[in-house]
Amino acid sequence: MTAPYTLILLRHGQSEWNQSNQFTGWVDVRLTDQGKAEAQRGGELLAAAGLHPDLLHTSVLSRAIQTADIALDAADRLWIPVKRSWRLNERHYGALQGKDKAQTLAEFGQEQFMLWRRSFDVPPPALADDSEYSQVGDPRYAGIDGEVPRTESLKLVIDRLLPYWEGEIAPDLRAGRTVLVTAHGNSLRALVKHLDAISDDDIAALNIPTGIPLVYRLGEDLMPLGPGEYLDPEAAAAGAAAVANQGR
Amino acid sequence: MTAPYTLILLRHGQSEWNQSNQFTGWVDVRLTDQGKAEAQRGGELLAAAGLHPDLLHTSVLSRAIQTADIALDAADRLWIPVKRSWRLNERHYGALQGKDKAQTLAEFGQEQFMLWRRSFDVPPPALADDSEYSQVGDPRYAGIDGEVPRTESLKLVIDRLLPYWEGEIAPDLRAGRTVLVTAHGNSLRALVKHLDAISDDDIAALNIPTGIPLVYRLGEDLMPLGPGEYLDPEAAAAGAAAVANQGR
Repeated sequence: MTAPYTLILLRHGQSEWNQSNQFTGWVDVRLTDQGKAEAQRGGELLAAAGLHPDLLHTSVLSRAIQTADIALDAADRLWIPVKRSWRLNERHYGALQGKDKAQTLAEFGQEQFMLWRRSFDVPPPALADDSEYSQVGDPRYAGIDGEVPRTESLKLVIDRLLPYWEGEIAPDLRAGRTVLVTAHGNSLRALVKHLDAISDDDIAALNIPTGIPLVYRLGEDLMPLGPGEYLDPEAAAAGAAAVANQGR
Repeated sequence: MTAPYTLILLRHGQSEWNQSNQFTGWVDVRLTDQGKAEAQRGGELLAAAGLHPDLLHTSVLSRAIQTADIALDAADRLWIPVKRSWRLNERHYGALQGKDKAQTLAEFGQEQFMLWRRSFDVPPPALADDSEYSQVGDPRYAGIDGEVPRTESLKLVIDRLLPYWEGEIAPDLRAGRTVLVTAHGNSLRALVKHLDAISDDDIAALNIPTGIPLVYRLGEDLMPLGPGEYLDPEAAAAGAAAVANQGR
């Protein structure tokens, strides 16, 4: 097959801990009813745009899988092949996992809070293995037992995501498949940073809204032929602003 | 890995056309709310029995995929790898697809009706390619365009299912995976006929209830070490009787 190739990114909608304003990371919380409605709308936007995913890549976190299942049902594409990987998981938030965002902001101050949320290479403190929010020993990571993170910066997310992009997603695109990736705020920021060649400094300002498909047309080198386009640009702008204001 | 291996079969629950009493076959109708509740209960039965599927095989029909998604969510196993194949699809019901079961019974009589429903090797009349209920041209079968059936007997279902059993499911079992198969009344009858070595005559009397996991322990030769066990035997017996009485 020849370019252009089509890549569609979809960030999951509101989860139980988005609603309760807690840091989530690798903790496997589910979508709220609002999050399910966002996924439904995402699938309807795909169908209305005449975009037909041939293949799905998701993280192994339930909220991204639920999003894919609901969106593909709405787009009448439940039957497409699926691949899942921990490499598409949300950033591991270390010892912040489970903590209230507003309380963390009050406790540690704006500077430290924003450093943890948006610095490129400063991870939060590591999560203890005996924490109720640790993923050490979780059967879904049995195959990568030694690689389960205790905390991650965005840089570390990029380090574990790019091999999956090159090794698993890129071949599907080159085979001419329209690929849908349903994932998370920071794993998608990592991918967009690569695609749009955003600098380590500038990535802090990038916020990806939930539930709105972001469509890239890629050339032979699998780099974008133009800017990625949200299927509902107005809602996307409002959604990105809402993400930027979280915890304020 | 060594035996025993664990295989779990799950038939999807009530679909829109089960409810309206129409022959369905390869027509891609969705689950009703009752069907979704059956899938939820199936997942809860798995969890309560301490059975943890490591890998899922489904047909490419939405009602089986919905069943798997709901049951695995209930069992907290949404994240397991998934493989889908048309070879697990329901029997293609030919020209009966879309027809009312009671009306078909009245029109053609009990003998012909039961011959189409339960004979081993007599398929219903072929479905015309220009029928609204034909799957010729459906993008999900683009890869097997020449193999899309126009009608099938149970024998023909076995012919297309067993290569998938041998080539795709058996290797996963031999690798020690607990395999869940979510599929349909007749594709599961075909598989159970093979496993339990049921004769071509006796298979007519076998009815598989919906929504209740059927668990087999298999030996090194991937044949059962004992009878398959339903996780809720009482409900299974009632459900099988209900299936046997359909259309009466």
